[in-house]
Amino acid sequence: MVADLRDRVGQEVCLKGWLHHQRALKAVDFLLLRDATGIAQIVVEAPETRAVVQALPHETVLSITGMAVASSQAPGGVEVHDPRIEVLSAGSEEPPLELFRPEIPARLPTLLDHAAVALRHPRRAATQRLLAAALDGFRSTMRTHGFIEISTPKLLGAAPEGGANVFPVEYFGHTAYLAQSPQLYKQIMVGALERVFEVAPAFRAEPHDTTRHLNQFLSLDAEMGFIHDHQDVMAMATQAVRGMVEAMGVEQGGQDALPAAMPEVPSAIPQIHFSEALALVGAATGEDLHAEPDLAPAHERWLGTWAHEQWGSDWLFVTGYPMRKRPFYTHPEPECPEWSNSFDLLFRGLEIMTGGQRLHRYADYVRALAERELDPVPFAGYLEAFRYGMPPHGGFALGVERLIALLIGAQNVREVTLFPRDMQRLTP
Amino acid sequence: MVADLRDRVGQEVCLKGWLHHQRALKAVDFLLLRDATGIAQIVVEAPETRAVVQALPHETVLSITGMAVASSQAPGGVEVHDPRIEVLSAGSEEPPLELFRPEIPARLPTLLDHAAVALRHPRRAATQRLLAAALDGFRSTMRTHGFIEISTPKLLGAAPEGGANVFPVEYFGHTAYLAQSPQLYKQIMVGALERVFEVAPAFRAEPHDTTRHLNQFLSLDAEMGFIHDHQDVMAMATQAVRGMVEAMGVEQGGQDALPAAMPEVPSAIPQIHFSEALALVGAATGEDLHAEPDLAPAHERWLGTWAHEQWGSDWLFVTGYPMRKRPFYTHPEPECPEWSNSFDLLFRGLEIMTGGQRLHRYADYVRALAERELDPVPFAGYLEAFRYGMPPHGGFALGVERLIALLIGAQNVREVTLFPRDMQRLTP
Repeated sequence: MVADLRDRVGQEVCLKGWLHHQRALKAVDFLLLRDATGIAQIVVEAPETRAVVQALPHETVLSITGMAVASSQAPGGVEVHDPRIEVLSAGSEEPPLELFRPEIPARLPTLLDHAAVALRHPRRAATQRLLAAALDGFRSTMRTHGFIEISTPKLLGAAPEGGANVFPVEYFGHTAYLAQSPQLYKQIMVGALERVFEVAPAFRAEPHDTTRHLNQFLSLDAEMGFIHDHQDVMAMATQAVRGMVEAMGVEQGGQDALPAAMPEVPSAIPQIHFSEALALVGAATGEDLHAEPDLAPAHERWLGTWAHEQWGSDWLFVTGYPMRKRPFYTHPEPECPEWSNSFDLLFRGLEIMTGGQRLHRYADYVRALAERELDPVPFAGYLEAFRYGMPPHGGFALGVERLIALLIGAQNVREVTLFPRDMQRLTP
Repeated sequence: MVADLRDRVGQEVCLKGWLHHQRALKAVDFLLLRDATGIAQIVVEAPETRAVVQALPHETVLSITGMAVASSQAPGGVEVHDPRIEVLSAGSEEPPLELFRPEIPARLPTLLDHAAVALRHPRRAATQRLLAAALDGFRSTMRTHGFIEISTPKLLGAAPEGGANVFPVEYFGHTAYLAQSPQLYKQIMVGALERVFEVAPAFRAEPHDTTRHLNQFLSLDAEMGFIHDHQDVMAMATQAVRGMVEAMGVEQGGQDALPAAMPEVPSAIPQIHFSEALALVGAATGEDLHAEPDLAPAHERWLGTWAHEQWGSDWLFVTGYPMRKRPFYTHPEPECPEWSNSFDLLFRGLEIMTGGQRLHRYADYVRALAERELDPVPFAGYLEAFRYGMPPHGGFALGVERLIALLIGAQNVREVTLFPRDMQRLTP
């Protein structure tokens, strides 16, 4: 493979990959062969080989055998001479995108329409490797801390949390609903395993057409028992994020297609209470925010900048969101029950994680559902966990695609997700 | 935690967990405390503590501080004396299941109705840890072999493979379909990353009410480029299975709740061609099978027994299934195109994996769709990958819940899945 080439100077090598690009000069063709590990320059001088090569469309799949030769001019310092070229699979025509350019010269909708081709671009492939490393870093951190992986149902018998923004599914003559999160299930599993995590798709029928929303997204969920309060969850979430960043850093070291500076993760991420955050933003912008129940995206951006100026941190926990804006299972602040033991984690001014302490007593659930005028019947199987002894617990959910988008400077989360799903898009 | 107790004899320990069971003798109560790591015996002698303890329902969440004392009679050889007991979270009543018995005395539908409680049983919790270990073993094996993790859409714009057995979803005024497998997407990604894997839920609307079918199941998928034929895929699948079994063996070593003997994975799993398999089974059973296009479950069981007698192997690859029973992307046997370069992997006579070489040329896809009278339009975005150079490739999909069910001797795959979904069941 291409990545090995540097170690094989002076040897005959066999590379298999895609015809990334070629440049015909007077006496020589420079052919670029791309495989999953990189791009190699092949020098073609034999006239009969040049004739064959020049007729091939971009993206033809080739097997190339030749001599690895050190060359200061070649990418990676090595090129292949005297190649014998075999066509493994011919492209039938020129591809619709110019994959060989540093950035594909096309707008996002075109790239998404042609995802099957666009994803071959080295930058997109590198993004995917970064995402895979983040997932690996997350899971290994969670396992190290005693969390057990679980897999929960994505088809629910009742629409959770009031029924807004769920996709209905035709299920053997009944209506099921796609899970917006594994929330209720990961809480139940605290009763069995104490600490659990799940990495799985989640589905939200939010009619949002923004650069940061997807209707299917990859949710990194964790839940842990025997906590004191949400601060224990935030400490664990900090470990998880650090594990992810470290794993991405290792992956980054091995590739140059995607320059993304890895952020420091402080040993304790700075935090600010929601009420203070509102006051700060209000004072700085002159807005009257004192009755606001939530932070607007612009406020989050302001806080991101502030955290960076104040603490040199890309990360900021905002805690204590008002109970009325958080879901029914949220645990209130014991001293001041209009606020909650909940948090969001902002990365560079964008929310990438939400979490908190949950209610753990059965009577509290009954009361919380009644206060919100939610029918307890669909929750019966879930509430059973709380009827029979549940410890104080909490957890978090992290949207990994948003995190990666911010890291690589993507303007749109759709540049990270392989085949994004939104209001307008169900294909490819 | 309970697992540490053996190392802490002579020290004061603090355990947090659930009141698993208690036995009141004349002068002493023996209390069993369960946490995620095991069960500890607590010896209660103080009369005022006994009075408190005896009033507690099973599953009450407790914090217990006391002295760890070696005792040959106690489970694990250690018990806790002179406990101070704090109730962290009281159960409101006795649970509907007797979790303290070696097997819960209830039938499967009752266990599934009360999953929130039943999953606390040490055997069920251990099953989940085994499953988690299998997933970890799978992923780490795949990564070691250069596979990159991907996450693909579970909502499709068109029903794949003819439209049978898919769940329709109401999607912003359109109809979407839940993905039965990541098949088309993992193939596309071979064009970008050469080797990919995914662990994700898959959804099949099969109206089967059997002990081995679920309508949502966890699919372990892999796809790899630059293969010679399906034999390369089978070699990789063997590695994957070995990695899973090894990881489960390590997990097994740490727990005694679930005695499951780990099977040997031969360096080359025995294989038999479909046509020979049919002939063997037909000769043994006297059935006339020569025109059969597939193996019935009873035939698979016969082959499982045969493989064990013949080769001492719990595993058997059956290769070469007839093209007419395999999906349109299946690659035929070059020498005998009525058979295919496909395989199933049987474990103890049950199919747990299916895979094979895929078509990789655009023209072959156009022809395959036409032959099966499938409309090529919904496949356009998928076929684009093949228009522009795809190497010979193949892959497999493994149903991990079936594998675990067989390993632990479960009668029904629903004993492995946390919250199974079937024709009758959408809750809890």
